[in-house]
Amino acid sequence: MEILIKQALLDGVRQDIKIEGNRITQVAPTILPSPDAEEIDASSMAAIPGFHNCHTHSAMTIFRGYGDDLRLMDWLENWIWPVEAQMTEEDVYWGSKLACLEMIKSGTTAFLDMYSFPTATARAVEEMGVRAVLAHTLFDRGDAERARLDRERAYSLYEIFRSYSDRIQFSLGPHAIYTVSGEQLQFCHRFAEERDILIHLHLSETEGEVQECIRQHGTTPVRYLHRLGVLSPRLVLAHSIWLDEEEMDLLAAHDCQVAHNPASNMKLASGYRFGYDEMRKRGISVGLGTDGCSSSNNLDMVTAMKLATFLGKAWRSDATAVRAADIFHSATEEGARIMRTDAGAIAPGCKADLCLVRLDLPEMTPCHNFISNLVYSANGSAVDTTIIDGKILMRGRKVPGEEAILARAAEVAYKLMDKKAIH
Amino acid sequence: MEILIKQALLDGVRQDIKIEGNRITQVAPTILPSPDAEEIDASSMAAIPGFHNCHTHSAMTIFRGYGDDLRLMDWLENWIWPVEAQMTEEDVYWGSKLACLEMIKSGTTAFLDMYSFPTATARAVEEMGVRAVLAHTLFDRGDAERARLDRERAYSLYEIFRSYSDRIQFSLGPHAIYTVSGEQLQFCHRFAEERDILIHLHLSETEGEVQECIRQHGTTPVRYLHRLGVLSPRLVLAHSIWLDEEEMDLLAAHDCQVAHNPASNMKLASGYRFGYDEMRKRGISVGLGTDGCSSSNNLDMVTAMKLATFLGKAWRSDATAVRAADIFHSATEEGARIMRTDAGAIAPGCKADLCLVRLDLPEMTPCHNFISNLVYSANGSAVDTTIIDGKILMRGRKVPGEEAILARAAEVAYKLMDKKAIH
Ligand SMILES: [Zn+2]
Ligand SMILES: [Zn+2]
Repeated sequence: MEILIKQALLDGVRQDIKIEGNRITQVAPTILPSPDAEEIDASSMAAIPGFHNCHTHSAMTIFRGYGDDLRLMDWLENWIWPVEAQMTEEDVYWGSKLACLEMIKSGTTAFLDMYSFPTATARAVEEMGVRAVLAHTLFDRGDAERARLDRERAYSLYEIFRSYSDRIQFSLGPHAIYTVSGEQLQFCHRFAEERDILIHLHLSETEGEVQECIRQHGTTPVRYLHRLGVLSPRLVLAHSIWLDEEEMDLLAAHDCQVAHNPASNMKLASGYRFGYDEMRKRGISVGLGTDGCSSSNNLDMVTAMKLATFLGKAWRSDATAVRAADIFHSATEEGARIMRTDAGAIAPGCKADLCLVRLDLPEMTPCHNFISNLVYSANGSAVDTTIIDGKILMRGRKVPGEEAILARAAEVAYKLMDKKAIH
Repeated sequence: MEILIKQALLDGVRQDIKIEGNRITQVAPTILPSPDAEEIDASSMAAIPGFHNCHTHSAMTIFRGYGDDLRLMDWLENWIWPVEAQMTEEDVYWGSKLACLEMIKSGTTAFLDMYSFPTATARAVEEMGVRAVLAHTLFDRGDAERARLDRERAYSLYEIFRSYSDRIQFSLGPHAIYTVSGEQLQFCHRFAEERDILIHLHLSETEGEVQECIRQHGTTPVRYLHRLGVLSPRLVLAHSIWLDEEEMDLLAAHDCQVAHNPASNMKLASGYRFGYDEMRKRGISVGLGTDGCSSSNNLDMVTAMKLATFLGKAWRSDATAVRAADIFHSATEEGARIMRTDAGAIAPGCKADLCLVRLDLPEMTPCHNFISNLVYSANGSAVDTTIIDGKILMRGRKVPGEEAILARAAEVAYKLMDKKAIH
């Protein structure tokens, strides 16, 4: 199968892009089509690498709009946790299907996930054609039996995941330092090191978490991880808002990676002084994430880019902070590096995970600077075409079968929340 | 002309909405159609009042993406002002046409504008079918001759505006307290009082403005306006970020109105501690605005709602602050009150300025809470149908003639910036 994208705007010039199998094989001003190539006229579009959502809980799409404007513990204890306790594998499957659909429609080609029933999410990912790193969540809150089961399940899930396509990677997701013990974190570290897989951990999301860490462990979260000996290049730390300079130095020294989640950080009021420029200056890989739809409340990476830049400029009182080009880099190339997708750029040899973005929209006009328009003006609906692993998953904003997914996911959600559908 | 909207989701239930002429005449679970009524099936949509953008400079769409990530004075002096000095009436006309198109496509039915050549913007507004309050900008920076001309022009423009349709209102736009003298503000106050028209003024946008006001006038901006005797219910104050409690009390005591612009406040790093809840608690009317596309960089009021809530929660470290329902009220009903459009609600007697929003989108699924989905998850592209003054201006996201407007506005923009088109 060959795809030939004709005359897409790419880094300021018009280029043809050839895809063979699941790789980009040629980028040039003019490429002659092979007889069997599928041609896409992109003369009114720009080509961008697919977005990499570096932190989400995809199945939580079914919680979208369920419990907003609440204090964190009220929200978790009275809204989210009681419902989560009822969730079945089937619920997770449909929530993940809806998530994959939303991601395809807004240009996200890969995501880093943490949720229960990762095999259900894997099934959705396989069917929908996207790319994902799915974490087995470890979450024992001091229950030794649950902790043992979590460890056992790591081995069995690792084996199960070997049967999936190479669009899916397995990883470990110790939930947080206040829900998982130091020993469990050390288990994850060794397990991941031996298999060279990623570890996905919430860290320093709230000021309360830092205070609690100091109270329990006598030091701050990153220093605590350092003392445990678990800082490594395999570690992807979600949030990481409440860090001091020395903690950033520690992350840089150990090549740890960070996922910034501006939407959930703002909406849950977890904290807003995320050190984006400060981390990048140190060479830390900073990816961008949306977090789950219960907190963010969408999976739109274009909106996440806007929020990251706007918030970063606002709290610093510096309009030159967190530049559009930098955040675009985080959302694409840097995310791909973090998630090891071998995608993230439009160049020969890269995996064919890319999007075509419409330029003939009011919010894209005039086009003095495409990246500026994309980050500051547009949103995910500007994406016209999404290609993952060399396959066209969306064209003209149509994804085959989307109506059925919306209907079924909504049904599952209403049933779970025991609420009547209002449409 | 009669329009009958069938089975739209409205305040949680399904309703039919009847429009006759330019008014909504009936809202009921079932309305039988008249023989000549145009029927719209809204069974997969929600009906909302049209958004009211309470602060923008519409013609600045042609500056979109031109000069980002710059410090305010660098940006103004080296990017914006040199180009603005070259702008013709024709440029303003095309910039405003593009703005009207973008607003129709994102559900904005009325806007409060301040820019040069208001008659050119009026021409665009008349043609595009939207509603607007257009300000004659007074901007003399101490030049007595220019100040005199600005005053003269107020009289002549007021007369010219009487010939326009009643979708257009005239207002005065003294630019800011650092570009217009106290005497000029008092002139505006008297002029507006005699004619009962609005005054549109930038106020307390930056900390520097407040410091300069204290240096020059010995007091803060709101106290300075109070001393001048120009606080009134006709005053719409854009930004108003850097206010103390007593200044808010003064605004409340004089029924002044405020336009909150979260996008430009964040992107230009003007300040982020906008007292939304604090002002509303005092009974101050707070509308929502996007500001101009040179700073915001779009006119999407759905995104503006999201930014206002997210930012308001973030800086207060309070997830219950700036609720979705409140900001939706600001963006619709409150904006209509501020702009005196007699719209802003879907009820018999109201002007027929409303939108139908698609529910069959991933970002709208599930629909546990429509307002939450709209504010926190969606963006302006969820708007399917826009009706203003009883006329359908967009249906199925298509606005007649949009391609030509995009092409011509882009051409005008590139010529003005003396830059080559990149597409
Ligand atoms: Zn999370
Ligand atoms: Zn302004």
